[in-house]
Amino acid sequence: MSKQESSAYPPIERGASLLLAWRLDGRRVLLIGGGAVAASRLGFLLQSGAHVTIVSPGPLEASIAYRVATEPDHITWHDRAYGSSEGGDVSADDELPVGDYDMVLTAVDDVALSRAVCLAARAARTPVNVADVPPECDFYFGAQVRRGPLQAMVSTSGAGPKIAVIVRDLVADAIPENVEDAIEGVGALRAELRERAPGVGGELSKRRMRWMIGTCDAWTLGEMGAMKAPEVRRRLLDDGWEKHKVLGPEAVGVGASVSARVAKALDGAGAVWAAGAGGLFTGAAVATLATLYFVRR
Amino acid sequence: MSKQESSAYPPIERGASLLLAWRLDGRRVLLIGGGAVAASRLGFLLQSGAHVTIVSPGPLEASIAYRVATEPDHITWHDRAYGSSEGGDVSADDELPVGDYDMVLTAVDDVALSRAVCLAARAARTPVNVADVPPECDFYFGAQVRRGPLQAMVSTSGAGPKIAVIVRDLVADAIPENVEDAIEGVGALRAELRERAPGVGGELSKRRMRWMIGTCDAWTLGEMGAMKAPEVRRRLLDDGWEKHKVLGPEAVGVGASVSARVAKALDGAGAVWAAGAGGLFTGAAVATLATLYFVRR
Repeated sequence: MSKQESSAYPPIERGASLLLAWRLDGRRVLLIGGGAVAASRLGFLLQSGAHVTIVSPGPLEASIAYRVATEPDHITWHDRAYGSSEGGDVSADDELPVGDYDMVLTAVDDVALSRAVCLAARAARTPVNVADVPPECDFYFGAQVRRGPLQAMVSTSGAGPKIAVIVRDLVADAIPENVEDAIEGVGALRAELRERAPGVGGELSKRRMRWMIGTCDAWTLGEMGAMKAPEVRRRLLDDGWEKHKVLGPEAVGVGASVSARVAKALDGAGAVWAAGAGGLFTGAAVATLATLYFVRR
Repeated sequence: MSKQESSAYPPIERGASLLLAWRLDGRRVLLIGGGAVAASRLGFLLQSGAHVTIVSPGPLEASIAYRVATEPDHITWHDRAYGSSEGGDVSADDELPVGDYDMVLTAVDDVALSRAVCLAARAARTPVNVADVPPECDFYFGAQVRRGPLQAMVSTSGAGPKIAVIVRDLVADAIPENVEDAIEGVGALRAELRERAPGVGGELSKRRMRWMIGTCDAWTLGEMGAMKAPEVRRRLLDDGWEKHKVLGPEAVGVGASVSARVAKALDGAGAVWAAGAGGLFTGAAVATLATLYFVRR
């Protein structure tokens, strides 16, 4: 192996998790527990469209109780403890076996029950998370932020959960306000492109992907929201796709492009410069008037 | 339900994925395919410590070939196509059945084979991802960034993959350079705290968590790296934990704390304010001198 070849492929840095966006729409999830941690899990599960079976003796944490009352199509609540215990032995033997579910989450203070559920889930090949017990987790939750169709997660695989939260807040600040408009606009463009040039795989599929990437590269995030307008999409497809061209915003009459570019340039360091310049002029003006006033007296 | 109660719990915004950090250390993954997409998957799998079985006729994409040659303990390569086909029917019938694996990924241009693998994986309850065919995916990959133990992912659940990449780059810029030091320092502190006050669950566990969160709140990310020093941790534990106190960096002699706090305060909006103020004074000074000069002539 030559030096150049090996340096092209850096050594593998192990210790990571595989970060995933798990699809739960229409799937069945078993949630064992009814406290604050279970409440947090429930929120994420409902957002993902899962049907959640909660097993926990009441009273439930307030937000869980609210969701049970208002989301009857998405939640079934069993007001009892999970599993059985005989002669002091806790087991996951229950009329709602973990193997009937697509995912199992436990958030209870019962170490023996958690362990029994984990073992049963592994035997049934059901993905499982036991809150606060890493060895009994097939997956961890991270610190998250959602902006409509865009989601971001920060994870330290348990090494620093509080730091994950701090970084998540920085990440949330870094996500542009108009990202939802951009996703909506680009999504509508891609959908119409697929109507014009349908099919999966092959040369056309590759050309479609290249054109979409090229077009996205020619627009800023702030400009992409303009693609929500049908006329803009029509011009991109008629004058761009059909003619094997990639068009920027100016080419399809998106007038806000200049101001959007300026806004983008001013973002971050640019804003510091602008504020400095603004301050410079304000300071100069005030000082000039003041100096004239005092000198002329 | 009173107005106040319902406004405390916002309506569920569906359509999200459940973002997860999947643990694959020591797990077995079947990767069908040997091209560019498979290469990207392989990188993430190796970082997560999985053992990967690759099934694909050679030649392999260059980086896959390199990993096969240099990671013999983590990769087994079968130089052949996956599955069988008889009378034009493709099936996932193979001597390496998907049910023997903890996860199956396919990245091939063969639609019939992908579908067969997906069906077999679902029957065997093995999580599956078929590249570019969302309905055949239990999970999606997002745009990712890794900084040692910290990982972040941006996903649009397929609505705007290119936008996810753009936002990922913004997110990468927003993650502080020294975050690895912070995680290492806080991780070492937490490990030593667990040695002093061991046990899972109960009051002690809660006090431990409260103290860790309180301590993290009293330190900036930039300061936390100082916890890598054993003397700093010893003082935090002896003078803080043992005495039921939360200590900031000054209390344990971390000198950089003031400048770090100033740097933190100046970050973002603070920098704009400071630049504006700086400009104000500079502008005032220059204008005053200039005005005096011209008026006095």
